[in-house]
Amino acid sequence: MEVNGKHYRTIWLDKEHPLAVSIIDQSRLPFEFSIKKIFTCGEMIRSIKEMEVRGAGLIGAAGSYGMYLAAMEAPLNRGFMPYVHKSAAKLKRSRPTAINLEWAVNRVLRAIESAGSYTEKQRASLQEAQNIADEDAEAGRKMGINGLPLIEKASNHKKGKTVNILTHCNAGWLALVDYGSALSPVYAAHKKGIDVHVWVDETRPRNQGAFLTAWELSKAGIPHTVITDNEGGLLMQKKMVDMVIVGSDRTTHTGDVANKIGTYLKALAAYDNNIPFYVAVYSSSFDWISSDGLKNIPIEQRSGDEVRFITGLDKTGKETRVSIVPGDSPVSNYAFDVTPAKLVTAIITDRGVCKADKKSIVSMFPDKFNTNG
Amino acid sequence: MEVNGKHYRTIWLDKEHPLAVSIIDQSRLPFEFSIKKIFTCGEMIRSIKEMEVRGAGLIGAAGSYGMYLAAMEAPLNRGFMPYVHKSAAKLKRSRPTAINLEWAVNRVLRAIESAGSYTEKQRASLQEAQNIADEDAEAGRKMGINGLPLIEKASNHKKGKTVNILTHCNAGWLALVDYGSALSPVYAAHKKGIDVHVWVDETRPRNQGAFLTAWELSKAGIPHTVITDNEGGLLMQKKMVDMVIVGSDRTTHTGDVANKIGTYLKALAAYDNNIPFYVAVYSSSFDWISSDGLKNIPIEQRSGDEVRFITGLDKTGKETRVSIVPGDSPVSNYAFDVTPAKLVTAIITDRGVCKADKKSIVSMFPDKFNTNG
Repeated sequence: MEVNGKHYRTIWLDKEHPLAVSIIDQSRLPFEFSIKKIFTCGEMIRSIKEMEVRGAGLIGAAGSYGMYLAAMEAPLNRGFMPYVHKSAAKLKRSRPTAINLEWAVNRVLRAIESAGSYTEKQRASLQEAQNIADEDAEAGRKMGINGLPLIEKASNHKKGKTVNILTHCNAGWLALVDYGSALSPVYAAHKKGIDVHVWVDETRPRNQGAFLTAWELSKAGIPHTVITDNEGGLLMQKKMVDMVIVGSDRTTHTGDVANKIGTYLKALAAYDNNIPFYVAVYSSSFDWISSDGLKNIPIEQRSGDEVRFITGLDKTGKETRVSIVPGDSPVSNYAFDVTPAKLVTAIITDRGVCKADKKSIVSMFPDKFNTNG
Repeated sequence: MEVNGKHYRTIWLDKEHPLAVSIIDQSRLPFEFSIKKIFTCGEMIRSIKEMEVRGAGLIGAAGSYGMYLAAMEAPLNRGFMPYVHKSAAKLKRSRPTAINLEWAVNRVLRAIESAGSYTEKQRASLQEAQNIADEDAEAGRKMGINGLPLIEKASNHKKGKTVNILTHCNAGWLALVDYGSALSPVYAAHKKGIDVHVWVDETRPRNQGAFLTAWELSKAGIPHTVITDNEGGLLMQKKMVDMVIVGSDRTTHTGDVANKIGTYLKALAAYDNNIPFYVAVYSSSFDWISSDGLKNIPIEQRSGDEVRFITGLDKTGKETRVSIVPGDSPVSNYAFDVTPAKLVTAIITDRGVCKADKKSIVSMFPDKFNTNG
C-alpha cells in the first residue's frame, strides 16, 4: 500500500543489502513511520516476539525470511542443517497461536532440505521466502476481490447509503505482506466508490485498532471512527453496524476462528443482532489438523506489562509510557480467543467465500486438506 | 467502608461546615485519596458531570444533597420555588441514564413542596437528602446479605475452591453511599471466609474497573486480577469464571438492564457459556415506567476526549495524561448499553433475589410499581 505517495510492503529484501531484511517497525506506529533492518535470525525472532512485525500473514513472511537469514548465517559444514533446524524450532516457538508462522517456517525448511549444496540451500531458502511473501500479498489482494461483493450487496440493500463495517484489531495491509485480510475488501469497496465507514475497535491491550487500523484508514482516506472495545455491542443494538469483518490468526478446517482477544464478544453481539459476521482467512491461516478450536488451539499469554502500561503522546507531543493499573493489582493477558463456527456467517478466502463448516472449507481447499496445508 | 483504618461514606454532610457537602473526589482515584467540599448546587452539578461523584446510587445521593444546597442558596421570597425547580431540572439533566438521580431529586423536591415556610423547606430538603443517603447505604448492605447465598452456593458446589467472579466497571461502595451493589455480596462473602477472586474488567474508556474497583478490592484485601474488557469472553470459555455480577444504572421493571458500556457483551458471553449473570439492583434503580430498555432508556454520550486521552503514572510516578488515539481519527463515546432481560439469570435486590421479568420484579416491589417509584 502507499505511505506518503510511496508503495510499501510490510517486509522486503533490501537490494542494496541482500543480507538484511527490511520491515516497517510496527511497534513505532502511529508515532513514527520507521523502517528497520533485520540482519540475523535471532533479531527476527526478537522482532516477532516484540511485535515489531505482527499479524498472521506478516509473521509467516517474517518467519520465512528468518529462515533465509538462518541459512545465510549457518556454518557451511555438517553443522548447517542442525543450525537451520534449531532456528526453525525457535522461530516457530516465538508466537504460538498464528498458524502461518509454523506453516511458512516448515515450507522454507522443506525447500532447504530438498536443495543440494549449501549454496543451493541458501538460494532455495531465499526463493521460498520470496514466494511466500509474494503469495501472501496476492492472497490479500484476492480476499479483497472476493469480499467486495458482500459490501456491494449491503450498499445496494441500503440504496447507496453508508455501509458501516466494524473491525477488531488490525487485519489491514500491515497484518499481511500487503492488502490485508479483513480490510482488503474495504479497500476494494472504497476504490470502487462505495460509501463505507469503519468502526475501529481500539483493541486493548496493545491498541492495534487505534494505533494501526486507524493509521491505515487515515492514510487511505477511508472514513472511520475509533471506539472502545466495549462499544460495539451497543452500536449493533442500535443498528449502526451493517457487518463485522475480522481477520484470523488460525481457523480450524471446521470453522472455529482464533483471533485477537475480544473477537468472540463481537461475534456474539453480531449473532444476537442478526448482523453478518465475516472472517477473512486465506490458505495459510487454516489449521488442517485441529477440529476443535477451543480445545486444540494454543492461546498465547503475553506479558502483563502490555495491560499495565500504555504509550501515548503527552501534551508536548512527546511519546510517554504511563502505568494505568496503579498499585499492585495482578493482571492477566491472554492474546487471543476462539469464535466458534456457529457464530460465523461466512469466511472470505483467497479462493472465494464459503461457509464456516468442514464441508464447505474442505471443498474450497481439497488440495490443502489432503496435504495438511 | 474503611480507608486506611477510618470509616468513610462516599458523600456526607460536614458537621463543622453544615453548608458544605463532602465527597470523595473519585476523579482523583486511584492516584490520590482526596476529600472535596461542595458549596453550591452548581458545583454539585459540575461534580456529577465530571464524574467526581459517579455510580448510580451515589449520583442519586449527590442529586439530593444538590437540592439541599439549592434550597439553602435560593432567595427567601417568591423566587424560592422557581429557583428550586430550575435547580432540580438542571440536576436531572446532568446525567441522563441513571434513574436514581431523577428519582432522588424528585423526592427532595416533593419534600420541599410539602413543607411550609422557607426555613421548613430548607430543613425538609436536608432531612430528605439525609434519608436518601442513609437508605442508599442500607440498600447496599442488604444487597450484600441477599447476594451472599449465591456465592456460598457456588463455593459449596466447588467444594470450597475459589469462586471466580467477574465484574464490569465499578459497582462497589464507591458507586453507592456505602457497601456497593455488585460488590456488596463479594464483601459479605469475603467477610464470611469464603474464598473469592474477582476478575476486574478495566472498563474503558474511564477505567473505573482498573482505577476504582481494583483500588477498593486492594483496600479490602480481596484477591483480584485486572483484565482488559476483551478478555472476559475467553475466561468464560475456559471455565475460569463462576459467575458475573454487575450493577445497574437503570433496570426496567421488565428486567432490561442499562449499565456501563460493555456489560451487554459480558452478558452474551455468560449466556453462551452457561455462567450465571447476576445484576445487583435496588429499589431506586428500577424504572417503573419503561418496559423496553433498548427503546426507552436514554443512552448518555460523553466527550470523545474520554476515549482519546488516558491518565496514568509516568516512570517518575507523576500523573500524566496522554493521547492514545493519535492523528485526527474521530471517536465515539456512548457511556451505557442495555442487557436484555433474557440474558439475566437473576436480580439481586435489597429485598431479595428475583427473576428478571415483570412478574417477579413487580411481586418483589408492589408498592414501588404502583407509585412509579
